[in-house]
Amino acid sequence: MADGHNPPLTLGIAGFGTVGSGLLRILRENRAEITARTGREVRVKSVLVRDLSKARACPPPDGARLTDNPDDLLKDPETDVFVELIGGIETAGELVGKALRAGKHVVTANKALLAERGNEIFALAAEKKLHLGYEASVCGGIPIIRTLREALAGDRLDSIVGILNGTSNFILSEMSDKGMDFAAALKEAQTRGYAEADPVLDIDGRDAAQKLYLLIRLAWGAEYPYAAIPVSGITGVSPADIRYAREFGCRVKLICYARLHGDDPRSGGIEAGVCPALVNERFLLARVEGAYNAVRVEGNAAGSVFLHGKGAGDLPTGSSVAADILDIAKNVPPCNTGFAGPHPTAPARVIGPRESFSPHYLRLNVADRPGVLRDVAAVLADHAISLAQVIQKDDAAETAPPPAGKAGPYTASLILMTHKASDDAVHKAVTALAALPFVRESPVRFRVLTGKSGELPRLRAGS
Amino acid sequence: MADGHNPPLTLGIAGFGTVGSGLLRILRENRAEITARTGREVRVKSVLVRDLSKARACPPPDGARLTDNPDDLLKDPETDVFVELIGGIETAGELVGKALRAGKHVVTANKALLAERGNEIFALAAEKKLHLGYEASVCGGIPIIRTLREALAGDRLDSIVGILNGTSNFILSEMSDKGMDFAAALKEAQTRGYAEADPVLDIDGRDAAQKLYLLIRLAWGAEYPYAAIPVSGITGVSPADIRYAREFGCRVKLICYARLHGDDPRSGGIEAGVCPALVNERFLLARVEGAYNAVRVEGNAAGSVFLHGKGAGDLPTGSSVAADILDIAKNVPPCNTGFAGPHPTAPARVIGPRESFSPHYLRLNVADRPGVLRDVAAVLADHAISLAQVIQKDDAAETAPPPAGKAGPYTASLILMTHKASDDAVHKAVTALAALPFVRESPVRFRVLTGKSGELPRLRAGS
Repeated sequence: MADGHNPPLTLGIAGFGTVGSGLLRILRENRAEITARTGREVRVKSVLVRDLSKARACPPPDGARLTDNPDDLLKDPETDVFVELIGGIETAGELVGKALRAGKHVVTANKALLAERGNEIFALAAEKKLHLGYEASVCGGIPIIRTLREALAGDRLDSIVGILNGTSNFILSEMSDKGMDFAAALKEAQTRGYAEADPVLDIDGRDAAQKLYLLIRLAWGAEYPYAAIPVSGITGVSPADIRYAREFGCRVKLICYARLHGDDPRSGGIEAGVCPALVNERFLLARVEGAYNAVRVEGNAAGSVFLHGKGAGDLPTGSSVAADILDIAKNVPPCNTGFAGPHPTAPARVIGPRESFSPHYLRLNVADRPGVLRDVAAVLADHAISLAQVIQKDDAAETAPPPAGKAGPYTASLILMTHKASDDAVHKAVTALAALPFVRESPVRFRVLTGKSGELPRLRAGS
Repeated sequence: MADGHNPPLTLGIAGFGTVGSGLLRILRENRAEITARTGREVRVKSVLVRDLSKARACPPPDGARLTDNPDDLLKDPETDVFVELIGGIETAGELVGKALRAGKHVVTANKALLAERGNEIFALAAEKKLHLGYEASVCGGIPIIRTLREALAGDRLDSIVGILNGTSNFILSEMSDKGMDFAAALKEAQTRGYAEADPVLDIDGRDAAQKLYLLIRLAWGAEYPYAAIPVSGITGVSPADIRYAREFGCRVKLICYARLHGDDPRSGGIEAGVCPALVNERFLLARVEGAYNAVRVEGNAAGSVFLHGKGAGDLPTGSSVAADILDIAKNVPPCNTGFAGPHPTAPARVIGPRESFSPHYLRLNVADRPGVLRDVAAVLADHAISLAQVIQKDDAAETAPPPAGKAGPYTASLILMTHKASDDAVHKAVTALAALPFVRESPVRFRVLTGKSGELPRLRAGS
């Protein structure tokens, strides 16, 4: 362990936005703790900004210089670590590449960059034997990277299930707690600063899929390309779904899942996806509120390990950036492959929708007339999907005249809970259901998250 | 990072009980994962047992020898790591000391040893620049040591609150879910193997206090002697308390807490304790069921980080032992001070009961006669304790004739929720209440855990 006479660790920080300001505040306010824990000083030498004339809420640290020239960081021989907090892919990727080639360790909070160009960047870092820290890229202040890489290093990991996007979770929580519709909840998220002006990456599930990509890579040393992860977001979630989910004792959450088939990701394969799902209220994951994130990892030795914390924000994300920097200060051997081990990852066998099984929740808006349930049940039977529970509710709003070729009036909701069925079968059944003359809107379809027992949620008495 | 041509890491394992067997199973079944993640083989050379003739459920690994001579581990030049899984203090302490002096890294699951002799053992490990891994000593499979030491290394930690004893939590869960009384729930815990034949260390809170000692030391680099931690266990928790807690929307949990006063443990001080507490059902901590453990850490940057997992058992504890071993395999610089930093810990200022404030739940068994509430309220007022809520219930069982000098009949329970009051004032008030002629049994007194807002639980409508 380092002693008190080590030279300081010198940082060049690229980006002075939310996370950059948070990191600078942490390094300033927690200086005493940091020095006590690492045995050396951590010092910021330069902060790279786009616009030198812009006013800053948080001052740059004493002795540090603001610069708009990347070379002041990249070509400075004193700078040990390049901290990439500018976001985006092109410029950030170019700077990270240059930093590694210049022999500087890199710490980044940029999940999009690593999801898009991880193979190239990790390979370069490994070749140069430098750190590539990215704890802050996944789930803000939750130490999920360390937990997978170190705490569970002796486990075979069986599954990862998580709520990895705080904006979506905030929107679903508002819809659930306050009965808001999607648009109102999204607006509230924007007002509070949780959602970007353009929230599309958050609510369509792609932001969560980028994080899931990084977790899969780390857990199994396997490449499951980010673009191949099946993703559906939360725009289709309605207050009605949230209400019906409650009748089953469930919450609707945007869930990321990854599960190992067999015992090797190359032969057995990995099943993964991002989608809205019904989560039993008894599960801790159902209790993740507001902008929080959580991850449940299942190891064959540790069992279930559940981590919960702030998924974003200047200080929580800054805390994870700081942790990676302090590993470097403590001379931990470089971690740079995006995996716990020294060797590059191999492509995973991607488990497709035919082999990917789950119970499903389906909601149909149907004309309330004889034979509806018979015909719906026939479609499901044709696709070998077995029904566990059905509710019919005469509460579907009649919002518009029926589309051409469709029967009216539309006054009933049909809610179906299936037993385990393949995503492929459910997809085909839903397509067939949508074509039935009495089914009006596209059917809603969510997975149902079950525990190890596989037990389905049950309708509550009185529902 | 290690490459594939590193020599194997050689272990000598002392103890072949529950955790020892779990570790051996993990090293055997997860060999491929472990080699991929560390870039080298982890091999068991010898297993120290007390009785060589005893039959073993799990075979010793190929090529390993069983021995009853500690020197086969301690004096073997090939053995890199001494894994102490025998438990107890005298023998284990002696062997750990010898192993360190012989230049071997140590990994242990022995919280009692570290709580009693941590200063001496950590100092020796630090002097010898060897690892002293103890993740498995606290909360089985939950990576709380790593999280405090590494993930939150950039944070000033404000508080730690946890459920650190699975046996107690199982008993309270059974009482809560099934309406069992304490004795029946304890018996069930013993039947299931959660509680020892002699469960006293678990149910009186001392096991939890040993773990809390280690967390305080790690979080603040401060020595708060284990023996100085105020501890009360769960033997006094009755089904009535669990019922009344529910009326406030709470569960009763055995809670460990530690909180920094000011910003330095030496000047400001640390408030700590182990006691039954009412926990709002909305908190994740209230949702910790059965033999699970959980810890919530509050950092000034990361915010609230909550970890949940299996608190004990062969494989979960073995998983944490393995993680420490794999750190050594990966040549991580030794961690050996029981703190994140290189320097020995300093004594904390111990915050005493006069400065330790919390809302409290009190339950009195009283004679149902005029003036009772007036006199109870007077005692509390005399001790400057302000009442938030009161319930009187005519349901106290009349189990026996009143003791000498006490009035009868005893037919009412008086349940009081106080505003924040010092432990000292509450203790004195409870002593004074116990002396009132109409108060029969010793009053029951639990803390009430509040969130950051300090908001008190409220009686539910209809209670």
